[in-house]
Amino acid sequence: MTAADALPDFEDVLAAAERVRGVARETPILTHEALDALAGGSLFIKAECLQVTGSFKIRGAMNRLSQIPAAQRAAGVVAFSSGNHAQGVARAARLLGMPAVIVMPSDAPRIKVAGVEADGGVVHFYDRETESREEIATRIAEDRGAVVVPSFDDKDIVAGQGTAGLEFAHQMEAFGEPLDHLICCAGGGGLITGVAIAMAELSPQTSIWTAEPEGHDDWAQSLAAGELRSNLPGTRSICDAILTPMPGQITFALGKRLLSGGLVVSDDEVREAMRLAFRYLKVVAEPGGAAALAAAVQGLPSEMHGQRVGVLITGGNVDADMFSTVLRG
Amino acid sequence: MTAADALPDFEDVLAAAERVRGVARETPILTHEALDALAGGSLFIKAECLQVTGSFKIRGAMNRLSQIPAAQRAAGVVAFSSGNHAQGVARAARLLGMPAVIVMPSDAPRIKVAGVEADGGVVHFYDRETESREEIATRIAEDRGAVVVPSFDDKDIVAGQGTAGLEFAHQMEAFGEPLDHLICCAGGGGLITGVAIAMAELSPQTSIWTAEPEGHDDWAQSLAAGELRSNLPGTRSICDAILTPMPGQITFALGKRLLSGGLVVSDDEVREAMRLAFRYLKVVAEPGGAAALAAAVQGLPSEMHGQRVGVLITGGNVDADMFSTVLRG
Repeated sequence: MTAADALPDFEDVLAAAERVRGVARETPILTHEALDALAGGSLFIKAECLQVTGSFKIRGAMNRLSQIPAAQRAAGVVAFSSGNHAQGVARAARLLGMPAVIVMPSDAPRIKVAGVEADGGVVHFYDRETESREEIATRIAEDRGAVVVPSFDDKDIVAGQGTAGLEFAHQMEAFGEPLDHLICCAGGGGLITGVAIAMAELSPQTSIWTAEPEGHDDWAQSLAAGELRSNLPGTRSICDAILTPMPGQITFALGKRLLSGGLVVSDDEVREAMRLAFRYLKVVAEPGGAAALAAAVQGLPSEMHGQRVGVLITGGNVDADMFSTVLRG
Repeated sequence: MTAADALPDFEDVLAAAERVRGVARETPILTHEALDALAGGSLFIKAECLQVTGSFKIRGAMNRLSQIPAAQRAAGVVAFSSGNHAQGVARAARLLGMPAVIVMPSDAPRIKVAGVEADGGVVHFYDRETESREEIATRIAEDRGAVVVPSFDDKDIVAGQGTAGLEFAHQMEAFGEPLDHLICCAGGGGLITGVAIAMAELSPQTSIWTAEPEGHDDWAQSLAAGELRSNLPGTRSICDAILTPMPGQITFALGKRLLSGGLVVSDDEVREAMRLAFRYLKVVAEPGGAAALAAAVQGLPSEMHGQRVGVLITGGNVDADMFSTVLRG
């Protein structure tokens, strides 16, 4: 699975950019001096929460689904996701005329379920505690002859997410100098490793760091150990989008080579980052989507101090009730 | 005051674009099918709430202040504003090394006062009911030898705001066809008339419409009458940014020629537009900033039905308490 030809490279990211053109939008880079002051460095914040479907996930989904051969499209696709990959797959499937079934936890944010349904995706709920979403998805796919679309551990998904990194590197040209560092949240790691592939080619001086919630720092642990480590079961976090048990095979093979280390944030720091994004950037960040900003504004690690640091806000699919509770902090 | 040479033209907007370059950012055009379905047309939404200082006002302020001769800069500037022009002037003044005093109502949103102070502006509060902000500003300016920076009825302010229209017209090239209509909120009308100047040159088929709160529809009334009409005193609205008593002399001279008519929205429709911007666009819109979106999503007027309609979300400076109350709707 980690054979070199199973790993995406820069050419794959460039090819993905052609496939997502006109579907994903170029999201802006935002800056604010108040956030720089908190961080102790210059932050360049790419707002992927403004992406179509409210997160970066449309990039990987479109890259993956558009490569399914015509003969297989009528049977459709199946995906499992807490909600952002779900919406990306549902949108890509609709654009390509394919049916989509999405296996989602019964406690998924309502806004994410509604997003899937608005694109014609059929939602199949499961219980996080007692059921295996992989088994359910596999069974549905076998029944229908459908393709299972993994959420991160897939060459085409990683390459598609990497188009966000292509954009980021090109957009930094308008700011004069490239990034010294880049912080990106990591669940399975499809986005951060795709971005890292692009940056390694276009901005090789940029070191790349994961951001994860406390108790879900499998990337930080795995990178430090040099081998796969998984989270202890049972830890909770508000960061629903990035609660995967461990890095993927493909993503960790890339991550070992391309990532510098992992940062960890508390749920309270995530809530504060959501408030700061509201106040200073005027964007809606969901909890998982705000993890990298949280890692930056809690004070950058000493090796990043005073430097140019890229931050990805990866999603904005948060229910109004939760957001207003966070704002009232 | 309305002599032809006092009115800004397209050349003035082009010159302004040079002066705001590197200070104002290009804000994105966002789209969402759910909003199109509500509106009954294709909406292209320019998110000026993502602008530096949280509103479009930096455009006009930078254009105006950067033309103050060097010898006059030490004495600084004075402005009066409910908050967005205030922040634009404070930021432009700081960038140009000038002191700024801003006369603000004592009930201005806290986030707007904080924004001015963060840029080193000195805030002078007044009581909306009993004091005249024009008199206070004039007195302060005379005491200091400072320049009063009007918030809308000024050739350079209008030309500066018009740079948003330049961008909008150019950005629409990526969407294939130009706008049929454009809706923009109007207080004094500096933004909409500046935008209209740019569109008249670059997108002459686009008709331009004001959006205003009920009871503050001085633009709609004035355009219908062909002469200046003012609001009845005492009407309240949550749209703090756009509650001016009547159009300006310069802006109405432009508006009579360039605008097609006025749309009116209720505060409840504005609140709903704020919720929709949160849910579908992931941006924070302040009440006045959401007025044009409100006019669109309540259902486009029949002459716009099924057409391509531009919408400006003009600001995002809203206090967290108010925003969370609106979200809980």
